[in-house]
Amino acid sequence: MAVMKIFGTPLSVNVARVIAVMNEKNLEYELVDVNLHNGDHKKEPFLSMNPFGQVPAFQDDDIKLFESRAICNYIVFKYKTEGTDLTHLADLKEGSIVGVWCEVEAHQFNPLVSGIMYEYIFTKFLGGETNESKIEEYCAKLTTVLDVYEERLKTCKYLAGDKFSMADLHHCPYLELFMKTPKAEMVTSRPHVLAWWQDISSRPAWVKASSGMQIPSA
Amino acid sequence: MAVMKIFGTPLSVNVARVIAVMNEKNLEYELVDVNLHNGDHKKEPFLSMNPFGQVPAFQDDDIKLFESRAICNYIVFKYKTEGTDLTHLADLKEGSIVGVWCEVEAHQFNPLVSGIMYEYIFTKFLGGETNESKIEEYCAKLTTVLDVYEERLKTCKYLAGDKFSMADLHHCPYLELFMKTPKAEMVTSRPHVLAWWQDISSRPAWVKASSGMQIPSA
Repeated sequence: MAVMKIFGTPLSVNVARVIAVMNEKNLEYELVDVNLHNGDHKKEPFLSMNPFGQVPAFQDDDIKLFESRAICNYIVFKYKTEGTDLTHLADLKEGSIVGVWCEVEAHQFNPLVSGIMYEYIFTKFLGGETNESKIEEYCAKLTTVLDVYEERLKTCKYLAGDKFSMADLHHCPYLELFMKTPKAEMVTSRPHVLAWWQDISSRPAWVKASSGMQIPSA
Repeated sequence: MAVMKIFGTPLSVNVARVIAVMNEKNLEYELVDVNLHNGDHKKEPFLSMNPFGQVPAFQDDDIKLFESRAICNYIVFKYKTEGTDLTHLADLKEGSIVGVWCEVEAHQFNPLVSGIMYEYIFTKFLGGETNESKIEEYCAKLTTVLDVYEERLKTCKYLAGDKFSMADLHHCPYLELFMKTPKAEMVTSRPHVLAWWQDISSRPAWVKASSGMQIPSA
C-alpha cells in the first residue's frame, strides 16, 4: 500500500491542518509540492484533484479527496484507534459536542480570522492595499466570538470539554498567523483563551506542522 | 425517553435544514418556538443553549447541541440505520466523498449564498438598504462555484456520486430562498445544476421542511 500523499505546500494553513492531524495520529505521508507562486494549483493536473484550485488535495490509493477538514475527517475515521483520539465518538455525547465546536470553528471563527489574515497578508502579497476598515469590522465580530470562547474555556480546558479534540486543532493554523499580527492582544487579553492557545500550540504535532508555515513576504 | 426538541422557528434556513434531516430519517421531534422578532434568541434562557444566540438549538435527553450541521450529524449518527442513508459511511470511499462535498457546501457555497440572501432579505428586514455591489461581488464568485457544480453534475446525479446524501441536502435551505431572487437564472441557466435542484427540492422531506420557510417582509 502506497503512503498517503498530501498535495500542497506546508506554507498553507489548510495543508498545515492536515499535517497536524497526520502528526497527532503518528502517520507517515508524502508531501507533494504544488508551486503556488507559479499558479500550479489553478492548472491541470491539480484541477483534476481539486476543481476549486485550492491546496491541499489528497490521495490514499484510489481515494482522492480535497477540502482540508474532509481530509482530516477521513484520516481520523480510518485511523480511529491510532495516536490521539480527536473525535471522542466512542461516547455519543462527547463526540457530538466535538462536532458542535468543529462547526463553531468553521462558521463563527474561520470566516472572521481568514478575512483578517487575507487583509494583513494576502492582499499585500497580491500587490493590493490592506483595508483597515475591513479588519476593524471583522475584529468587532471576532470580539463577540472570543468572548464566548473565554466563557466556555472557564468551564473546561478545551472547547469540547476536558479533552483535546479536532475542534481545538482546527483553530491552530489561522491562530498561528493571527498571533503574529497587531491584533494578537485579542487573544492575550483573554486569560482562558490565551492559556488554551499556549496549550494547543505547544503540542508536538502542531509545533512540527507549523514549522513549515511562514508569512509570505510582499 | 422524551421526544427530541428543536428550538427555533421553521422560518430559519438552519432550522429547516435540521427538520429536513428529521424527515429523511422519519423521526418525530418537537419544534419549540423561539421568537426572533422579540430577540428571544439573544436572551436567556436561549443563550444557555447556544451562546452565539442563533437558532436552532437542540435537545435529546441530556444531550444539548447547537450549530445546525452538528445537529444533523448527531441525528444521522444516532439513527444511521433508519430512513435515508445520508452519509454512506458503510463504504469508506463513498462516505469520504460525501464528506468532501459537505465541506464544499460549508466553505465554497454557503458563505456566498448566505451573503447574497443577507443583502436581499435581512438587510431590508433590519431597515437597511440592499448593497447591490456586494451582491454582484458574491455572484461573480458564485459563478465559479456553480460552474464547478455543473461539471460535477455532468458526471454524477448528486454531488457526492449517484446517491442523494447530506451534501445535497445541506444546499436546500439557501437554494430555496435563492431561487426566489432575480439571480435564480444562475441555477436555471445551468442544465445539470437545475436538474439536480429540481430533484433534491422535490423530495418529500424537503417539501415538508420548506413549507414553514417564508421570506420575511420588511
